Amino acid sequence: MIGKVVVSYPCDVTHLANLQACAPGWQIVPVSSEQQALREFEDADVVLGNPHFIQALPFARRLKWMQSNSVGMDLLLSSERVRTGDFLISNARGVYDNELADHTLAMILSLLRGITASERNRLAGLWHRRALVSIEDTHTLVFGYGGVGREVCRRLRLMGGRVTAVRRQPDVDAVSEVPIIGLNEGLARLPQADIVVLALPLTAETENLFDRKNIAALPTGCFLINVSRGGLIDEQALESALDRLGGVGLDCLREEPPPSGHWAWRHPGVLLTPHVGRAPESPTCRRFYSLFEHNLGRWASGQSPVNLIDRTLGY
Amino acid sequence: MIGKVVVSYPCDVTHLANLQACAPGWQIVPVSSEQQALREFEDADVVLGNPHFIQALPFARRLKWMQSNSVGMDLLLSSERVRTGDFLISNARGVYDNELADHTLAMILSLLRGITASERNRLAGLWHRRALVSIEDTHTLVFGYGGVGREVCRRLRLMGGRVTAVRRQPDVDAVSEVPIIGLNEGLARLPQADIVVLALPLTAETENLFDRKNIAALPTGCFLINVSRGGLIDEQALESALDRLGGVGLDCLREEPPPSGHWAWRHPGVLLTPHVGRAPESPTCRRFYSLFEHNLGRWASGQSPVNLIDRTLGY
Repeated sequence: MIGKVVVSYPCDVTHLANLQACAPGWQIVPVSSEQQALREFEDADVVLGNPHFIQALPFARRLKWMQSNSVGMDLLLSSERVRTGDFLISNARGVYDNELADHTLAMILSLLRGITASERNRLAGLWHRRALVSIEDTHTLVFGYGGVGREVCRRLRLMGGRVTAVRRQPDVDAVSEVPIIGLNEGLARLPQADIVVLALPLTAETENLFDRKNIAALPTGCFLINVSRGGLIDEQALESALDRLGGVGLDCLREEPPPSGHWAWRHPGVLLTPHVGRAPESPTCRRFYSLFEHNLGRWASGQSPVNLIDRTLGY
Repeated sequence: MIGKVVVSYPCDVTHLANLQACAPGWQIVPVSSEQQALREFEDADVVLGNPHFIQALPFARRLKWMQSNSVGMDLLLSSERVRTGDFLISNARGVYDNELADHTLAMILSLLRGITASERNRLAGLWHRRALVSIEDTHTLVFGYGGVGREVCRRLRLMGGRVTAVRRQPDVDAVSEVPIIGLNEGLARLPQADIVVLALPLTAETENLFDRKNIAALPTGCFLINVSRGGLIDEQALESALDRLGGVGLDCLREEPPPSGHWAWRHPGVLLTPHVGRAPESPTCRRFYSLFEHNLGRWASGQSPVNLIDRTLGY
């Protein structure tokens, strides 16, 4: 099989050479502008990368596979043409698991060990010691047991914490022995959680999952961390719970950056990071390069790409 | 063997009952003031806890064993009477390993993931995304391979980081496979470190270990974390390196709190926490209770306490 691959992200010659080596004989065409994408999409069999995709998709006549460089699919699937298309979609699942789990741990530990409060105290010249929490004293409910949820669970367990994962299908992870409970049971256990982590895709099912009722179920002093999508949380309901929670770590909000005057800018219990659970990467050294090379190699040799998306599930 | 135990810290009845159960027939005497300590030390065979110890020690006539509730011995051993005494000393080694390792990880991850910078940006209404580092991209040199150093190494490795431990005697940890190199080799490797963690006792040998020369050997962008004692670092030399380091996390300083005007209060690259690597505990629920009960049980049955200190080594 021979065809044409459009590469929509800025990349270096080594990566292009690697892609070519993985798909001998294929035409590999990097594009650097929307205009160029509109033109090159027309006879593209494969598109690698998100940039210009939704804009150029109407011009694609024989697209068979699109490889996204994102993990969350909600933005792509907000386009009806993407939702109803018959091309395969794969995502960057796995590539950023460690980074996202590190960032989640950074947020949990910062709240538990009073790091942001220490920074505010430092700037005010205050030396204020108080009781703090260790991971070994906590029980964490991790909503979502994909790559990120799994890595978060693994880290917390190895630090002596108790963890329970929550996903649609209850199970037990045979390797890690993490107990995995169903969504309704997970929500029922909120009142016993010391820490709640959201590591979920944003889908029709998870949209607004943390509504007023479920936020009210979080116990006093509980820590809530969201490293997924702002749409999982009712932000008005969360605002009214801030004073009784132990702290809220948000790497994402419904609007990013949040509008001026938003409580996330000012409440002392909030740790806000600017959607850097997956931080900007150098354009010449991106973590997804090797996945893309691997997947293009599979495609060119007639195999199915890994990380395929189920459009109905949304992940 | 029967004798008298002075308990110098405020504690609850359950702990006192547990101590009594571990040493049947022994006299267990809690003291709550220096005056009371001066009196009760006279015929004490055993003292549990640091409060009033240095003040009351001159009155002790038959002290055989002192159990400290600290890990670092530098303060106790700064008293000549303690240094030259012939009673045994044991410390709280191990009890706070998890908490101190958690705090160390909190400091490392906060610097790597820009948490304190995000907090300052948040208060200024700024949403500033930039490239960040993941643990899997780092090589950490951990100076000290006692309980805390070991736990820090274990956590970093399990997060995908490369770690090398440094201590007096080179070795390999047979369980964790962490390579352990000697002090001179460790210092020679500073230019290759992404992160340097100090988890060392303060002794004559380690005092000022990070002097001007060794601080100059830290590469540009390197992160330095001290969760041990301020005396390990030449603070003037560190100040002059702040602008080129990636960040400095300090839970301890030579003077605590540092004097007003000290650079640690104001440099943006500094993460300062108020000596809470081991944070204040509730007086009715202290992590060292079970060690003390265990050790008193050993003592009362004629066994040697665990965690004995070598006065010459200082730990």
